[in-house]
Amino acid sequence: METIGLNGNVYDGQCPSRLVLDRIGDKWTALVIGLLEDGPMRFSELQRCIHGISQKMLTQTLRNLERDGLVSRTLYPEVPPRVEYELTPMGQTLCAPLTAVRHWAEEHITAVTAAQMAYDQRRGGP
Amino acid sequence: METIGLNGNVYDGQCPSRLVLDRIGDKWTALVIGLLEDGPMRFSELQRCIHGISQKMLTQTLRNLERDGLVSRTLYPEVPPRVEYELTPMGQTLCAPLTAVRHWAEEHITAVTAAQMAYDQRRGGP
Repeated sequence: METIGLNGNVYDGQCPSRLVLDRIGDKWTALVIGLLEDGPMRFSELQRCIHGISQKMLTQTLRNLERDGLVSRTLYPEVPPRVEYELTPMGQTLCAPLTAVRHWAEEHITAVTAAQMAYDQRRGGP
Repeated sequence: METIGLNGNVYDGQCPSRLVLDRIGDKWTALVIGLLEDGPMRFSELQRCIHGISQKMLTQTLRNLERDGLVSRTLYPEVPPRVEYELTPMGQTLCAPLTAVRHWAEEHITAVTAAQMAYDQRRGGP
């Protein structure tokens, strides 16, 4: 909860860092950044690795990440043209926090599911 | 990107850990957990500390967190009755990852805003 030495305050609804928190907390952002951690990737590779993401959602997510300065987009003028997405240095600083969040989800899924079932049973159904 | 030893795989659209990632990445979740890190709180205290959250959204967020086993709700039969929300042991394990994400947003807000302005200028307007 301490905010000393930070530029923003996510608890202030008017602070733009609240919007940044919303963006980086987005599950698609966490999944894209986790893949790009291993190196540059093409759109089609990203889409194949993130089961269930639509073309529109991936396009929007990548555009937002590019606008936020977290991902760079490079066009290689080959035939056919090749476009690659890569983490910027700032984007790389986000890898560790988001990896921790992704791993938490994967490590605790059994316990969370059990808690949900117990909760629903106490209340007589989901 | 490595998932060895984990129970779930957030890259699999059918894996329930994808839903957990969505929940814990939610900005309201990150803000509530960050406050409860310092100890139990009442509904009204939480609402006061999170500028801009509606009563409905806070109610829903706390109910989801309780169902997921991350927050416990205790009713003290006083006059008037007092209800307190507290992190469970599992909820406490989420503090470090979410604090890292919140701090990232607060530390990088200036750089992200600058990147957005540069991006919009390159494209001739927001």
